[in-house]
Amino acid sequence: MISVVGHTAIDHISRVPHLPAKNCSTHIYDRQIYFGGGAANIAAGIATLGEQVSLISCIGGDFYGSDYDRWMHRIGIQQQFFVVPEAHTPTAFMFTDDDGDQMTFFEWGASKAFATAEAPSLQFVHMATADPEFNCRVAERSEFTSFDPGQDVFWYTREQLETILANTDILFANQHEVRQMCSTLGMTKESIISQVGTAVFTMSGDGSTLHIGNTEHRIPALPVTLADPTGAGDAYRAGFLSAYVRGYDLLTCCKIGTVTASFVVEHVGCQTHLADWNAMKMRFEDHFGLLELPQSGNDR
Amino acid sequence: MISVVGHTAIDHISRVPHLPAKNCSTHIYDRQIYFGGGAANIAAGIATLGEQVSLISCIGGDFYGSDYDRWMHRIGIQQQFFVVPEAHTPTAFMFTDDDGDQMTFFEWGASKAFATAEAPSLQFVHMATADPEFNCRVAERSEFTSFDPGQDVFWYTREQLETILANTDILFANQHEVRQMCSTLGMTKESIISQVGTAVFTMSGDGSTLHIGNTEHRIPALPVTLADPTGAGDAYRAGFLSAYVRGYDLLTCCKIGTVTASFVVEHVGCQTHLADWNAMKMRFEDHFGLLELPQSGNDR
Repeated sequence: MISVVGHTAIDHISRVPHLPAKNCSTHIYDRQIYFGGGAANIAAGIATLGEQVSLISCIGGDFYGSDYDRWMHRIGIQQQFFVVPEAHTPTAFMFTDDDGDQMTFFEWGASKAFATAEAPSLQFVHMATADPEFNCRVAERSEFTSFDPGQDVFWYTREQLETILANTDILFANQHEVRQMCSTLGMTKESIISQVGTAVFTMSGDGSTLHIGNTEHRIPALPVTLADPTGAGDAYRAGFLSAYVRGYDLLTCCKIGTVTASFVVEHVGCQTHLADWNAMKMRFEDHFGLLELPQSGNDR
Repeated sequence: MISVVGHTAIDHISRVPHLPAKNCSTHIYDRQIYFGGGAANIAAGIATLGEQVSLISCIGGDFYGSDYDRWMHRIGIQQQFFVVPEAHTPTAFMFTDDDGDQMTFFEWGASKAFATAEAPSLQFVHMATADPEFNCRVAERSEFTSFDPGQDVFWYTREQLETILANTDILFANQHEVRQMCSTLGMTKESIISQVGTAVFTMSGDGSTLHIGNTEHRIPALPVTLADPTGAGDAYRAGFLSAYVRGYDLLTCCKIGTVTASFVVEHVGCQTHLADWNAMKMRFEDHFGLLELPQSGNDR
């Protein structure tokens, strides 16, 4: 069982002819609602790949019985939710105009409950972007921990990052997040890697790198028809972690992450086009050769 | 039975610390969802006052089973809806910052179906802000028609306004709407009144005026603790029309409209604080004296 800690969120993506000036209005051509939130995206990816997954999120009074709730049940995500009946499930409103300019309004909503929630002690947990303090407590109490700071990297203090990294087995980050972590910690990327032991850095279209101690492996991205890069990192982590619990070696885990991400970016939305294990395996073998059963387990 | 034609809409009212610049984001402190749409507000007011009311609106696939749907059933609105399953129910997103500046994004959504919908032939109909062409067709086919152009007054062509006014028995408008109608029609306010016969003009805190031919009556607003003026005009029309079908004279209808509106503005939201007949009657008698039963009927 993989546990994933972090946001479940609802994304409203709207197209408008122009963004409004202050005290003005505009109309919406088209509004689509997508299921999102970093942790929920990862959990959805893992569930679709066929692994048992439990999602630890804060949700509002609007969640149970919603389309998103039904979707989670359908794909088999186990919900371990902190419910704040008087709040909304975290919600983002993004407006994009005809020139491609954007405005985003983000409602943290029920996720405020992380601050005071009791942190669980977990066997195998991935901590996605969420409340830094809660993630620190989870990291300290859990056995195997992977971590990605996500867009909330700016909210982490030096002490919080130190606590988490001291308790992290595998670190995931993109280039921006690594830079910010180096800056907050006053450390080089190399010293962060050497502290954690294993790190995976994603570089969008340029693929990813796997760092095990001083060794670096480069994994190329797959050629895809890109519709929307959002959610690629989450899908990568879903693929990586699913492969990891099945006992694949770290480099193969990265390749499986890469292949899993390649599906998600072909459609708009982070949970719109998830791969099951067979679809992933077919595409894996087209690009990386035969995906054999793992030799030994990374049992947790 | 009063029929009301126009929008059913959902209003998301959010408070933010600051409005975002282009390509920036902000967070939402607080988001409240209110039931709105001019026609739905009027229907809710009429239903709560105890009259039979049928609401003719366009709704999306998100409506049935929603909180708004349940609310309409609870207060007894009869729904005569054009359903567009692939669209949203019209939705407005309003963001207000700490300086009181605002941005509004409005999604017309399912209301596009008015353009091609078959217009019903009705005995007693109020036409609120909606698709001008649809309202023209309703006006032409119906027996008794009242009309308020609302914020969509700008969308009406001269020909459309002429068609509607030629078929309108009572015109409702606020000062801005009257000015815009005069401008579009190239007519004075007096000539509009004389064409329609009966007109009611609302002036927010300054009360309203009733025009019957050349005669003008002024009805003062009630002193209230104002929380939010939105929906006052809709509540006024709900009160007026409910009184009208009960057979009250036009001046008493205006007073009942005034009292009905005084409840709505005491709370945020257009359907948050509706008066039933008894509550309206008590406040009426505090301000305007005994509300007797009407002498004769305005039977429809």
